[in-house]
Amino acid sequence: MKLSQATTMLDAAHAEARRRGVSVCISILDAAAWPVAFIRMDGAPLGVIDVANRKARTAVLFQMDSAEFAKIGHPDGAAYTLENTNGGLASFGGGLVLRAPDGSMLGGIGVSGASTHDDVEIARIAAATLVA
Amino acid sequence: MKLSQATTMLDAAHAEARRRGVSVCISILDAAAWPVAFIRMDGAPLGVIDVANRKARTAVLFQMDSAEFAKIGHPDGAAYTLENTNGGLASFGGGLVLRAPDGSMLGGIGVSGASTHDDVEIARIAAATLVA
Amino acid sequence: MKLSQATTMLDAAHAEARRRGVSVCISILDAAAWPVAFIRMDGAPLGVIDVANRKARTAVLFQMDSAEFAKIGHPDGAAYTLENTNGGLASFGGGLVLRAPDGSMLGGIGVSGASTHDDVEIARIAAATLVA
Amino acid sequence: MKLSQATTMLDAAHAEARRRGVSVCISILDAAAWPVAFIRMDGAPLGVIDVANRKARTAVLFQMDSAEFAKIGHPDGAAYTLENTNGGLASFGGGLVLRAPDGSMLGGIGVSGASTHDDVEIARIAAATLVA
Repeated sequence: MKLSQATTMLDAAHAEARRRGVSVCISILDAAAWPVAFIRMDGAPLGVIDVANRKARTAVLFQMDSAEFAKIGHPDGAAYTLENTNGGLASFGGGLVLRAPDGSMLGGIGVSGASTHDDVEIARIAAATLVA
Repeated sequence: MKLSQATTMLDAAHAEARRRGVSVCISILDAAAWPVAFIRMDGAPLGVIDVANRKARTAVLFQMDSAEFAKIGHPDGAAYTLENTNGGLASFGGGLVLRAPDGSMLGGIGVSGASTHDDVEIARIAAATLVA
Repeated sequence: MKLSQATTMLDAAHAEARRRGVSVCISILDAAAWPVAFIRMDGAPLGVIDVANRKARTAVLFQMDSAEFAKIGHPDGAAYTLENTNGGLASFGGGLVLRAPDGSMLGGIGVSGASTHDDVEIARIAAATLVA
Repeated sequence: MKLSQATTMLDAAHAEARRRGVSVCISILDAAAWPVAFIRMDGAPLGVIDVANRKARTAVLFQMDSAEFAKIGHPDGAAYTLENTNGGLASFGGGLVLRAPDGSMLGGIGVSGASTHDDVEIARIAAATLVA
């Protein structure tokens, strides 16, 4: 993950969030789950800073979107308490695995602050810039 | 949030707790979740110190009462594990958002040590002093 | 330590801080280092919240004022690194042991936000109310 | 602190770092020490992510540049161990208080990854955009 890729994603996500009229935090991590870039839009609740980071972290650490992770790490899932590992993970949508055009994992993005549906859509538009 | 507002709330909450014959902790945070004032009444269990703080923190960070937050961060809610973010949040009543008469958020109050019903009522009486 | 004793100390410390024209945080812990009462005066820097708590904690955990503790837990002191134990302690003045008239330890008080000299004097005036 | 102010600072700091041929992390916090924006330049060591954040946090929490803070929290300073409070602070340059043209505190910036001299200069150029 290069910083230029991350800032292109941030710009795309930021524009999409404004278009939807929502305020979100956007967190981008590399393939080793270390931070590359982050923004908090004006008006986003303080609590979603950490949520955006954890969504991205969940996606990277288990190489799956956080909405997929939610099916496993739930009291009714196959690996209940998995969500308590690694300092606490996010079992709901808005965290996506970021992949290069060849399919290799570049990192993860987490978006939080709007509805889960909006969070996911904003993250998808950002991730799409990597394969444009 | 000014200290004078916080101490007025503490006095009101303390008086209401005595009237109900219960011992509680009362925690007041500013709009960025930093502590402003705190008291532990004689006889309150040690464990509720942290609970009162987390209730107030939950209310501030997500700009909603902790009883509302509980509906989201529950295993059957829209964002299971949300309660594991931000160092661990409180998914039950007794944490209220504190607002000025114009509706702007001043911070949060958390009350813990009695029944959840009593905790909520004590917090409400304290919060009401801000708009009196 | 009763809450009434703690609030009497807070009032005395608060009045003395105002008299000196300084903004401080005041933290009062019981003899087991659990919080009893706390206030942050308007204008005190956010960083001194934690400092006040640690000064009081240092006083309680080692049954000595934090200014005395500083002589031990210093690179040139007899027990260098002692200040790194217990989650991190405060090696400078402003934390006092609180004692009943019979000399038994009731807890600790920590004051932070002004000069160390002022912090110590404010804490002393608060502590004196216990033996008045 | 508005996000637009933070991204203007990031752009200025990023350009200055490239001009100097160094790779740094740049962290911008609001006046309550909550993250607003962050970037890690390609090639910056992983360890400086946390350093940049702590420099900014030190500046905000004690309302002074981290180079000034270093004089107080040093083993021979007036408040040795102060750097151990608040989760660990940074006692060297590269963290600056961010102020509006009227002098009010908007937050803090932390730069880390180059020499301390370069880190400070990069942070200063970023901070200057707030009063341009």
